[in-house]
Amino acid sequence: MTVIEPVRWSGDHLVLLDQTRLPREETSREYRKWEDVAEAIRTLVVRGAPAIGVSAAFGMALAARESRAETIDDLLTDLDAASKGLAATRPTAVNLFWALDRVRRVAEAARDQSVADIRQRLLSEAHAILDEDLAANRALGDHGAMLVPSHARILTHCNAGALATAGYGTALGVIRAAHERGKVALVWVDETRPVMQGSRLTAWEMVVEGIPHRLIPDVAAGSVMARGEVDMVITGADRIAANGDTANKIGTYSLAVLAAHHRVPFYVAAPFSTIDPSLASGAQIPIEERDAAEVRRVGAQQTAPSASPVFNPAFDVTPARLIAAIITERGVVRPPYRF
Amino acid sequence: MTVIEPVRWSGDHLVLLDQTRLPREETSREYRKWEDVAEAIRTLVVRGAPAIGVSAAFGMALAARESRAETIDDLLTDLDAASKGLAATRPTAVNLFWALDRVRRVAEAARDQSVADIRQRLLSEAHAILDEDLAANRALGDHGAMLVPSHARILTHCNAGALATAGYGTALGVIRAAHERGKVALVWVDETRPVMQGSRLTAWEMVVEGIPHRLIPDVAAGSVMARGEVDMVITGADRIAANGDTANKIGTYSLAVLAAHHRVPFYVAAPFSTIDPSLASGAQIPIEERDAAEVRRVGAQQTAPSASPVFNPAFDVTPARLIAAIITERGVVRPPYRF
Repeated sequence: MTVIEPVRWSGDHLVLLDQTRLPREETSREYRKWEDVAEAIRTLVVRGAPAIGVSAAFGMALAARESRAETIDDLLTDLDAASKGLAATRPTAVNLFWALDRVRRVAEAARDQSVADIRQRLLSEAHAILDEDLAANRALGDHGAMLVPSHARILTHCNAGALATAGYGTALGVIRAAHERGKVALVWVDETRPVMQGSRLTAWEMVVEGIPHRLIPDVAAGSVMARGEVDMVITGADRIAANGDTANKIGTYSLAVLAAHHRVPFYVAAPFSTIDPSLASGAQIPIEERDAAEVRRVGAQQTAPSASPVFNPAFDVTPARLIAAIITERGVVRPPYRF
Repeated sequence: MTVIEPVRWSGDHLVLLDQTRLPREETSREYRKWEDVAEAIRTLVVRGAPAIGVSAAFGMALAARESRAETIDDLLTDLDAASKGLAATRPTAVNLFWALDRVRRVAEAARDQSVADIRQRLLSEAHAILDEDLAANRALGDHGAMLVPSHARILTHCNAGALATAGYGTALGVIRAAHERGKVALVWVDETRPVMQGSRLTAWEMVVEGIPHRLIPDVAAGSVMARGEVDMVITGADRIAANGDTANKIGTYSLAVLAAHHRVPFYVAAPFSTIDPSLASGAQIPIEERDAAEVRRVGAQQTAPSASPVFNPAFDVTPARLIAAIITERGVVRPPYRF
């Protein structure tokens, strides 16, 4: 198996695989400042809820290294600024806030240590978040693979793969685990306009791993279901409310409605770090709206009149009633969901 | 009102507005050979079921002009070749075959005329098809406008506009007529991957006419409906079977399912030339599959691995049970449909 590492630490800096360049080229970039990590998250060099969380944790470790603070209070002030800056990049994926909180709590708890110790602890914590995410993906992959029938034709949207996590993936983690067990006949890959994470990232992962797949325009998913050629749909998640309502890439909700219409089970795969029990329902999940330019142009080419207003929400919310199960590292959770 | 003329005759040649160049530039091209008209249909210089039919009729008129036949039999042989060549361009839109049949019947019926007379008759017939399409659009626009509530927020897919017809449009004909009556609050324009007829053509028509609109990625349509911001969906059609099942641009079927789920009425607008009573149901409608390159690249830029197989159906079939009404030039037809 090829190892895909979207986020890794190398000696004294963070290395991100530049996902905006895939599948044309595999370029890695080095990060030594938290501000640059924030920019990488904002510009989608790294994306996917768990991968954003891991990157933000390393961003905090970098902030601690960069800081010239000589007292704990000064260091905590600097960390606070970094945390705010990293948190301001993208509003929907809760893993970002979860990872920032976790790292900040470690710093707070170490108030009686030396500045040098805290720096080391934050880096260790970021490594722990990365390792735990990888382990969670493997575990949820194993749980999810049990839901996959033989000769399964699985449809997925966006990229909830190795590239969206510390490696291995959530929705694609389930697909990888099922593929290792010889159960996958075909993966239908939604191209996922406007940012094309399906074409650029998921199809690339499928090629790298030799998993049989077929790329479709998002608008063809309903047709493929109507032809009886989809046995299950699996997507990742950016935030799951206490009642199971799930925010994920725009288009996920439509897929869930289409799946219900065709009696195809619709699954969400996500680690517990994606669950936000503080929100009662999906109505409270903030939905990021991205730049009109993503929709007005196709690649480098303008396709719509500049005078045309655009609505470009990056995510939508799928109500829990449309979700057959949520696949987590602790097992498969069935409705009614109570997180 | 600006007049948009996608297809027009000028003295001794056909003029097509090159729709592959919109919205960046308004370029017209001249056609003097039926083979070049066939190529224009194949490469989407002209597209939209009614506009394809009108163009093919003029293609036959050009074939008659080009022909060096001195006898009726030789002319009919040449026309037969042209008809076969034009028919082989795109399989789904029935208006193409309807227009070719109609022109061929005129030639057959004129067997006792001179070759010069037949040439003239074919050109007149092509003009008649164009004029009738324009009149049909106006009439169906009037009928359809009555279905549009005040302050309507209407979602449409692909381009069933002036550009898809002899002018005015089918789905956009209804929207134009409703706009003339002050009923349109907003048109949601689906961008319509992979060929982007929504962004490139429908948004351009909305700008040209000053109709309030907002462009969305196709994947956002479900979300916009869930927010309660769509009062009706209207699309065109490429072929309607005797039972009302309707082939239209890929993604139309998903919209119809989503509309049903959100209790939003889903309408089809099309002239009778789009109805194919020879087919009992939509299952018999041939669906064109287009080149993988349309999906593997975005504009000029490759977005998916070349190794990724693609499924790229250009159309899908919406079952009659999901269609609230079919708006034609003879009136609004309600289910059960029996054409």
